[in-house]
Amino acid sequence: MRLAIDAMGGDNAPEAIVKGAVKAAETIKNLEITLVGDEEKINPLLSGQNNITVLHTTEMITSEDEPVRAVRRKKNSSMVLMANEVKEGRADGCISAGNTGALMSAGLFVVGRMNGVDRPALSPTLPTQDGKGFLMLDVGANVDAKPEHLLQYGVIGSIYAENVRNISRPRVGLLNVGTEDGKGSDLTKKAFQLLKDAPIHFIGNVEARDLLDGVADVVVTDGFTGNVALKTIEGTAMTMFSMMKKTFMSNFKTKIAAGLAKNDLRKLKDQLDYSEYGGAGLFGLASPVIKAHGSSNERAVFNAIRQACQMIELNVTSTISNTLQDMQQKEEK
Amino acid sequence: MRLAIDAMGGDNAPEAIVKGAVKAAETIKNLEITLVGDEEKINPLLSGQNNITVLHTTEMITSEDEPVRAVRRKKNSSMVLMANEVKEGRADGCISAGNTGALMSAGLFVVGRMNGVDRPALSPTLPTQDGKGFLMLDVGANVDAKPEHLLQYGVIGSIYAENVRNISRPRVGLLNVGTEDGKGSDLTKKAFQLLKDAPIHFIGNVEARDLLDGVADVVVTDGFTGNVALKTIEGTAMTMFSMMKKTFMSNFKTKIAAGLAKNDLRKLKDQLDYSEYGGAGLFGLASPVIKAHGSSNERAVFNAIRQACQMIELNVTSTISNTLQDMQQKEEK
Repeated sequence: MRLAIDAMGGDNAPEAIVKGAVKAAETIKNLEITLVGDEEKINPLLSGQNNITVLHTTEMITSEDEPVRAVRRKKNSSMVLMANEVKEGRADGCISAGNTGALMSAGLFVVGRMNGVDRPALSPTLPTQDGKGFLMLDVGANVDAKPEHLLQYGVIGSIYAENVRNISRPRVGLLNVGTEDGKGSDLTKKAFQLLKDAPIHFIGNVEARDLLDGVADVVVTDGFTGNVALKTIEGTAMTMFSMMKKTFMSNFKTKIAAGLAKNDLRKLKDQLDYSEYGGAGLFGLASPVIKAHGSSNERAVFNAIRQACQMIELNVTSTISNTLQDMQQKEEK
Repeated sequence: MRLAIDAMGGDNAPEAIVKGAVKAAETIKNLEITLVGDEEKINPLLSGQNNITVLHTTEMITSEDEPVRAVRRKKNSSMVLMANEVKEGRADGCISAGNTGALMSAGLFVVGRMNGVDRPALSPTLPTQDGKGFLMLDVGANVDAKPEHLLQYGVIGSIYAENVRNISRPRVGLLNVGTEDGKGSDLTKKAFQLLKDAPIHFIGNVEARDLLDGVADVVVTDGFTGNVALKTIEGTAMTMFSMMKKTFMSNFKTKIAAGLAKNDLRKLKDQLDYSEYGGAGLFGLASPVIKAHGSSNERAVFNAIRQACQMIELNVTSTISNTLQDMQQKEEK
């Protein structure tokens, strides 16, 4: 397996990226990694691993860059060169913790779509109370989705959850404003009918208030709603942690309480940290492209690499493509 | 001011409803209340207030009823009779803690829309960290919104926030997937242009992760997205409280910590309780219609009544209607 990794993307680049890659190169079998970025900064972090090579460039796409323009103009950026490695067959997949929009553009314009998919989806695995997590797609790649796109997301998510996350008969739910059949917008009403007939375990509509309780293994939604739901979860959790902190610092008694419960409360925060599940997949591209969280540390980078390796080893991309093309052929008959 | 109140709607009806009404009747000047419901259950809770009358009925709309059908068929339900009081001019506004969908239907079919509004919006005031709260509209009345609807929501929300919530120059934001101009779906891109030219203090796009930090006083969105955002806030907060509880019960040290911080942690929960801000307005109807939260206690009912009274006293409905009609006339010129 050969992975290309953008060594310069993310808040902790290149250190966390290179260290995560080193750990993966040392522990995952048959893995070859190409780190793309500034060799002056990368080389000092390596110690002669013979399965890591560096593709040198000093150009970078930053988080402030306008995605589409950056990908078109910064042809020698670490992210675009990384995607090129995949396009030209020198890598089986790629990973970046950089600018999300730019990675989606690089995925679309450089790596390209897979057969059978109209619009790729950005798909993180989010935490649930029971620690199992759920896959949500799309969270922002495609903000004007059509019912057929949501159908494809259901199939893609189901195949990914079954193969990579080892969930048998993954429960696929459609994010909606109520659980009853027939609820929702034009889009969700039409998508519901399509998902009902798809070769997946569709459990119907699910509501946003039940997401973190693990109501489904795969949650299908349009990119606009998914983005709002994802950011609402993040925002509400951040606000509550900040309010909790203020509460614990408010007086003598609560300060003692904080001291006593500190370690356990930290665990609570870890439970909501979704880097354990790997990065967000950009599903529907011709090869695995993984968006690691911008704040990824070494461990999160390692998890994203492991996730990409599983997708490659288990041929997830071709399984998805074949399934969708079979469905479309049946539809045409 | 005359208010009609559905005494039979909500988890704590009729007790909490009647007690909240009694408190309002005793403390708010020039208020006359008609309680609609089962007099056998209501009368024992009254103590001869001469500004409360009871309109007797035993029929009820339950939370399981299909909204539109229930309003059409249960003509003698407490909710429909309540709306009738407004329609026939015997009340200036009405309040129910019952079935939300049914109240929207009763509002639309019985009370009727105001001039200048295409589609009413359901609009709660949600908590922020600083305790000021923000108005979100729509959270589910209109799941297939058009740009013009979002424009109207911006104007409605701004007028309400300025008049009833006493916020001068309320900051109106458009819920979107990024803060930059030009971001978003077809709907939000078009709505952005309309809101930019409206006679309100439009601050542009806001992101879901900043909602509870008070990024805007009024947040405009379509009913589908707003419903998902609202339920995601509720679900994330509930999950976190439940995880926190488990953490505090996990060992001896944390149990002591819980004992020490109990009262302060309860305050944290109260901060997120949005019944203090009153109920959710059904804005865009010919008269004030307020949806009190299903779990409303006496205090929440009182707050919803006070809110309805303010809307009536300050002529919020006619201010909204006149502003929207002025805008439409200018548009036509």
